[in-house]
Amino acid sequence: MLYALVANVTSKTAANGIYLDVDLQDSTGSTVGKVWQATEEQLQIIGGFIGKIVNVTGVKVTYRDQMQLKISNITEADSQAIEMFVESAPVAKNELQESIERYILLVEDPTMQRITRKLISKYSEQFYTHPAASKNHHEYMSGLAYHTDSMLKLADAMATLYPSLNRSYLYAGIILHDLGKVIELSGPVSPTYTTVGKLIGHINIIVSEIHVVAHELGLNSEAENESLMILEHLVLSHHGKYEYGSPKLPMMREAEIIHYIDNIDARMMMLDRALDATSPGDFTPRIFALENRQFYKPKSEN
Amino acid sequence: MLYALVANVTSKTAANGIYLDVDLQDSTGSTVGKVWQATEEQLQIIGGFIGKIVNVTGVKVTYRDQMQLKISNITEADSQAIEMFVESAPVAKNELQESIERYILLVEDPTMQRITRKLISKYSEQFYTHPAASKNHHEYMSGLAYHTDSMLKLADAMATLYPSLNRSYLYAGIILHDLGKVIELSGPVSPTYTTVGKLIGHINIIVSEIHVVAHELGLNSEAENESLMILEHLVLSHHGKYEYGSPKLPMMREAEIIHYIDNIDARMMMLDRALDATSPGDFTPRIFALENRQFYKPKSEN
Amino acid sequence: MLYALVANVTSKTAANGIYLDVDLQDSTGSTVGKVWQATEEQLQIIGGFIGKIVNVTGVKVTYRDQMQLKISNITEADSQAIEMFVESAPVAKNELQESIERYILLVEDPTMQRITRKLISKYSEQFYTHPAASKNHHEYMSGLAYHTDSMLKLADAMATLYPSLNRSYLYAGIILHDLGKVIELSGPVSPTYTTVGKLIGHINIIVSEIHVVAHELGLNSEAENESLMILEHLVLSHHGKYEYGSPKLPMMREAEIIHYIDNIDARMMMLDRALDATSPGDFTPRIFALENRQFYKPKSEN
Amino acid sequence: MLYALVANVTSKTAANGIYLDVDLQDSTGSTVGKVWQATEEQLQIIGGFIGKIVNVTGVKVTYRDQMQLKISNITEADSQAIEMFVESAPVAKNELQESIERYILLVEDPTMQRITRKLISKYSEQFYTHPAASKNHHEYMSGLAYHTDSMLKLADAMATLYPSLNRSYLYAGIILHDLGKVIELSGPVSPTYTTVGKLIGHINIIVSEIHVVAHELGLNSEAENESLMILEHLVLSHHGKYEYGSPKLPMMREAEIIHYIDNIDARMMMLDRALDATSPGDFTPRIFALENRQFYKPKSEN
Amino acid sequence: MLYALVANVTSKTAANGIYLDVDLQDSTGSTVGKVWQATEEQLQIIGGFIGKIVNVTGVKVTYRDQMQLKISNITEADSQAIEMFVESAPVAKNELQESIERYILLVEDPTMQRITRKLISKYSEQFYTHPAASKNHHEYMSGLAYHTDSMLKLADAMATLYPSLNRSYLYAGIILHDLGKVIELSGPVSPTYTTVGKLIGHINIIVSEIHVVAHELGLNSEAENESLMILEHLVLSHHGKYEYGSPKLPMMREAEIIHYIDNIDARMMMLDRALDATSPGDFTPRIFALENRQFYKPKSEN
Amino acid sequence: MLYALVANVTSKTAANGIYLDVDLQDSTGSTVGKVWQATEEQLQIIGGFIGKIVNVTGVKVTYRDQMQLKISNITEADSQAIEMFVESAPVAKNELQESIERYILLVEDPTMQRITRKLISKYSEQFYTHPAASKNHHEYMSGLAYHTDSMLKLADAMATLYPSLNRSYLYAGIILHDLGKVIELSGPVSPTYTTVGKLIGHINIIVSEIHVVAHELGLNSEAENESLMILEHLVLSHHGKYEYGSPKLPMMREAEIIHYIDNIDARMMMLDRALDATSPGDFTPRIFALENRQFYKPKSEN
Repeated sequence: MLYALVANVTSKTAANGIYLDVDLQDSTGSTVGKVWQATEEQLQIIGGFIGKIVNVTGVKVTYRDQMQLKISNITEADSQAIEMFVESAPVAKNELQESIERYILLVEDPTMQRITRKLISKYSEQFYTHPAASKNHHEYMSGLAYHTDSMLKLADAMATLYPSLNRSYLYAGIILHDLGKVIELSGPVSPTYTTVGKLIGHINIIVSEIHVVAHELGLNSEAENESLMILEHLVLSHHGKYEYGSPKLPMMREAEIIHYIDNIDARMMMLDRALDATSPGDFTPRIFALENRQFYKPKSEN
Repeated sequence: MLYALVANVTSKTAANGIYLDVDLQDSTGSTVGKVWQATEEQLQIIGGFIGKIVNVTGVKVTYRDQMQLKISNITEADSQAIEMFVESAPVAKNELQESIERYILLVEDPTMQRITRKLISKYSEQFYTHPAASKNHHEYMSGLAYHTDSMLKLADAMATLYPSLNRSYLYAGIILHDLGKVIELSGPVSPTYTTVGKLIGHINIIVSEIHVVAHELGLNSEAENESLMILEHLVLSHHGKYEYGSPKLPMMREAEIIHYIDNIDARMMMLDRALDATSPGDFTPRIFALENRQFYKPKSEN
Repeated sequence: MLYALVANVTSKTAANGIYLDVDLQDSTGSTVGKVWQATEEQLQIIGGFIGKIVNVTGVKVTYRDQMQLKISNITEADSQAIEMFVESAPVAKNELQESIERYILLVEDPTMQRITRKLISKYSEQFYTHPAASKNHHEYMSGLAYHTDSMLKLADAMATLYPSLNRSYLYAGIILHDLGKVIELSGPVSPTYTTVGKLIGHINIIVSEIHVVAHELGLNSEAENESLMILEHLVLSHHGKYEYGSPKLPMMREAEIIHYIDNIDARMMMLDRALDATSPGDFTPRIFALENRQFYKPKSEN
Repeated sequence: MLYALVANVTSKTAANGIYLDVDLQDSTGSTVGKVWQATEEQLQIIGGFIGKIVNVTGVKVTYRDQMQLKISNITEADSQAIEMFVESAPVAKNELQESIERYILLVEDPTMQRITRKLISKYSEQFYTHPAASKNHHEYMSGLAYHTDSMLKLADAMATLYPSLNRSYLYAGIILHDLGKVIELSGPVSPTYTTVGKLIGHINIIVSEIHVVAHELGLNSEAENESLMILEHLVLSHHGKYEYGSPKLPMMREAEIIHYIDNIDARMMMLDRALDATSPGDFTPRIFALENRQFYKPKSEN
Repeated sequence: MLYALVANVTSKTAANGIYLDVDLQDSTGSTVGKVWQATEEQLQIIGGFIGKIVNVTGVKVTYRDQMQLKISNITEADSQAIEMFVESAPVAKNELQESIERYILLVEDPTMQRITRKLISKYSEQFYTHPAASKNHHEYMSGLAYHTDSMLKLADAMATLYPSLNRSYLYAGIILHDLGKVIELSGPVSPTYTTVGKLIGHINIIVSEIHVVAHELGLNSEAENESLMILEHLVLSHHGKYEYGSPKLPMMREAEIIHYIDNIDARMMMLDRALDATSPGDFTPRIFALENRQFYKPKSEN
Repeated sequence: MLYALVANVTSKTAANGIYLDVDLQDSTGSTVGKVWQATEEQLQIIGGFIGKIVNVTGVKVTYRDQMQLKISNITEADSQAIEMFVESAPVAKNELQESIERYILLVEDPTMQRITRKLISKYSEQFYTHPAASKNHHEYMSGLAYHTDSMLKLADAMATLYPSLNRSYLYAGIILHDLGKVIELSGPVSPTYTTVGKLIGHINIIVSEIHVVAHELGLNSEAENESLMILEHLVLSHHGKYEYGSPKLPMMREAEIIHYIDNIDARMMMLDRALDATSPGDFTPRIFALENRQFYKPKSEN
């Protein structure tokens, strides 16, 4: 029995009927699984596994020098198995959930509390399993929640050092800032951009959602409800610069800080990963997302 | 009797009670109107005129070398008077309305039809009186509808020349592209940016509205309803470049064309205005919104 | 008998005299043609075919596993054959000529009429067969005239919508704007930049030509003849921005519009081509000349 | 008796001998002080007060409608008086000193410890009184130490959240990063750039000093002593981008973080100051050093 | 008797006939000259003096508190007087002429020789009196020839150090590179941009002239005459970058060097002028054309 | 016997003891040298040859189809042999030394003389053998001295044409401007960036050295010794623009000129090399360091 991602399924015709070629991938590479004399129903079911993690049993055979798996059984993996299969955040999902929910409680602004709670509740499953990006940083399972949680902790520390910062704004803004990625990215495994993700983008996706939720909660419009307006502004401006696709530049103290915290956490994540793979006294390769710079790992570090 | 914009109202205390200083503005400048021995009710009513056009009668008196108007009656002007007072689009409001509504009928895509119709209906009054900008181009009464109508006509001509263009997308996208300005800008007279306008912006304001209307109409979400997704994309990308605050770059043929048409119509409007004020054989002053260029008016032109 | 482009001719010495290797290309690839025991005269004639389309007959032989063509006859193809050989504009050359000549008649400014007529007459043959670019857009036979004609039609529509535009300026400016490409690019087939094209460029080539023609026609200099000055300005500024190699920025209403029309027509051409090769629901590859963007083809489109 | 900054001293000749015009400035504006029948010695002494805070006594007289101060006594103010005169950091100098010295003790790398200790000791007096900038942020007395201390506290918090960060590097780099400003800027009062400041700059000033101190301490050169090399790199790269005059881009994890912390602390300082001067519900004026943005102060804030 | 520039002439009608208001300017300011009872002939002649330096005699009268000059005689100044009137190059015109003509003789390429000689001969008078710019550098009488001559000398020195440079290309390119300024700028006194200068520009003006002269001299076209093509390229590319309005980037060794020499000579001229006006130990004001930098004048310099 | 660069040495264990694999490189490629039954001493000595040129003798054997060299003797090559082995500047080292030392004598400013002399003396050996860059220009043996000498000669010519330039500043600034490259680059053969080179950079390396040498010579600090300050400024600003890693922009006439001369000499070197490899009538390939331009070689050139 093994777990694998079904990358593709193709049906082919042989002398004795249709068979399926199932392209199975895991971290060790790619294997061809064969389902001989496949029924129409099998084609439907197994075709529906594309892009999902499955639990496969079968017999390994060698054909023309290549290993094949003659599949005897194939079912969708349960979520526990999926979590074991894919690279996950260094902190367990339930710990992340507990920590983030504690921060939601600390959002004292009632409008922000209600909206944040409702949206996290609506997208709870995806929020705690999605990656934060399709590449570069936090692109692993629960990466989104892990990134969000790290940002919350940094915001917490900064609000202590700079008491003029409003914790409600920081926490609610951070929790929602990237939530649109649950729609922008295809899923926890091998994330790619969805069509909606490309044409609308996670920022606008979530701002529209905030607007609808406010509507559903019977809140006033942005022009009458300052908290609603501010919450949307914090999300809209978190990319910080127009050239990074930010529809608005930060025009509030907390918007500026959320943009900085977002950057710092993503950069630390990329730097740690690159430097972990580098020998002391050497430089990392050029890192495109860090302005194409190389980074030095001191000899004394280990 | 005269028409004027009430720029400000302040109540002051004199020996014989409260009086009001009403700052009245028209195209010839500013006059102080006085309401002596004002009642609390007058203060409420006249204070409510700030930013509006009023119809004033009174007696002109000279006090310490300055002309004052001792106000005997002041009422809000009716819309017909307002239209005469402020600079208006060169085409009458009802003609614009007729033309734009004809184009709504030509939107064959049902999702786009319903959303466009509902939103124009919701904001009908503002849409047909608002300016298109706070300065530079179409910043006069009905400027927004006039700009929209010109763009529709240009789109019409282009769809004839380039048959691959989808008229539903062009028309619906154009009609909604700047509708958020009815919230972003304060109103038809002396438009300024509202707080919501500054922090959220007309693009995101209207995209959220489209999202809510789709919700109300029971339409599927963007991921399932391609027309909804496309409509939002057309609005989101119409500024064309990130540095102009476009949250998305145009990623559809019609998005690219709407961006171009928007530019051309705004530029023609600015050029015509600047060249009208220039003598043949001379150059206009440098025009900031046209990359700080000067433009030449041929001697043969008149 | 086949048609092919002669990409190169080299003479080599064998035991029994000189022979020629003729590199023949068509859309299916490359073939070596051999002319055995070639005379000096054959070398001269066939060498003169480099870069031209020829009509070849001969015998296919296989030598060391490679197909060769032993040439028995090779002559320059007539223009009709050439037109069949290379990719052509979607509108026939004579229709383009008819349409463009009609627009020349509509140039009411006499200076512009005479110069335009004289230059189009001088370069008539090349103008109606040249491509508009070496790659990206309208890079096929008659592409230059096709692009020019589309721009004229769009200008026509815009002059109707914006009556302040001067049709003489628009038409004359458009007809001449890219005429320098008949010298800048090598020819209708596999266009490459000539040395003059690289060092002088099509804009300056045609402006100098306008200057000389004005001289020949006994017209006054630019300083005395405003129409001559304007015509040169329209050509000089049509790239719109310095960074696109425009020696001057548009400083006239019509110059601004010609720049926009040029862009729109080139972009529509590139978009149509890219989207034609894309399946509904998919995105095109990134298109370098469109700021490296991808474009979406709706599922509903076919 | 009053305290004032001597902005200038000029000697003039009157019928009864030389007199001095002393340009005295405080936060309320400028006053002319007169020293009648001045001696050569007075000229020397008072001329030496230019740019310093003095303690002046005298009689106010009105001459040709302008208030003058007939000076009877003028002496340099003691440092206590100076501190009262000029705007100071919100934390007392001795508290800053205590806090920063505690961080020096936490620098575990011996090379960095010794260099940091020696340089702070060498420039101790200026370090704890200098401003951090000539304008924009922390441009008040002890601003440099206050900015340094805030950065250290933020670094402390971040090293707790991101354990891969080396505290020695962070603390030593931060303590020295702006120390060159004690030479770059003229002094705690009305800071201006010195000639050396303009031509060499605070970054290179302090890197040369580090190099010399290392030399004096008998340390090996940068090529042999990695800690020395790293310390210099952290200072050289803290402006983060070439266009901000950074001779090197950050190429170490801690260099990247110091750059971010520097930015955050300067921005928070500017934002707090601008928002303190803004009414709830209003926007600040455009702030040049914050990319010319305006910032919003929520109505709920007070 | 005084010398003045005639800035404008207007004829007005009084009771006793027409009189002329002659606007006279010199470095001390502006005076109104009156020609009472002017004849039609006087109007013609004096009107022709606009933009020229004249020699005026008359009587100063005061009318309504303003000084007027009742003109008794007004004639165009001879060139010697003009040279005294306006700021001139530090080298005499005839010396410049001699030096530049010597360099023309050193152009060994016959095409370049003939074209250069013919064009300098055609524009000889203006070439040796025109300024090189309307502001910033060499904006004085003969500034164009002085700048050209300095560039030739620097090219001479560089060709000695770098023998791969072709002296014919350098000298001919330099002599013609700015010749178009005799049409682009209004004249030696108070130079302004002409309409042709703004719409066509000095680069394209002179390239068209080169093209016409080549035509007149019976030379082959650029495609057949490499020297003609190179000469045009050198002129077209001398601004070096697109953003400086260079239609072509330098694509030859000599084009690159001419661009550098042009820059160096203009910059040395601006620096010398700014530093001459600065005290030792001080900085110049920010100089816009030198990227807004200040420059330091050492104390030891005098 | 052959000369080769030792690129790497690895010791491996075989049945009969340790043997060494010596990676030998010359312009023809790479060979494996074998030292069988190597002693510990041999490992030490030969390991020390990495990055150096050696003189090797041995027997060529073929093992598994690959040529190996069984090394019998290997010693470090003497400097004469090294000079023959690597590409050298077109002027002999001793001529360069003679010329540069003559220019040091012409530095009349005593501070600059002493510092320049002391630093050139300290780094004499490396200065006259190092390349000027790791690629693009002057990347050959003695390239640094050759580049320096060419710049001095050009400065000499320019100081003659522009007498306001101070020769002491020019000569001292040029001699030291790139001296830091003896530490930044690994050595004359196959230069790569050292760790110190990457993290500190040649500009800051040499400025720190100037500072230390001034200290050792008992000179006053920059604030008191204007010549020292100027010398450091000239070095700090020679890259001319922040984006090229210049910590300071040129703020002196001589700083501006050194920046220009540096550019011109590097560009002439690259152009000469690229054009030497190009046929008359052709263009060079695109040259990245010259803004990705191609350059034309005239047909008449040979």
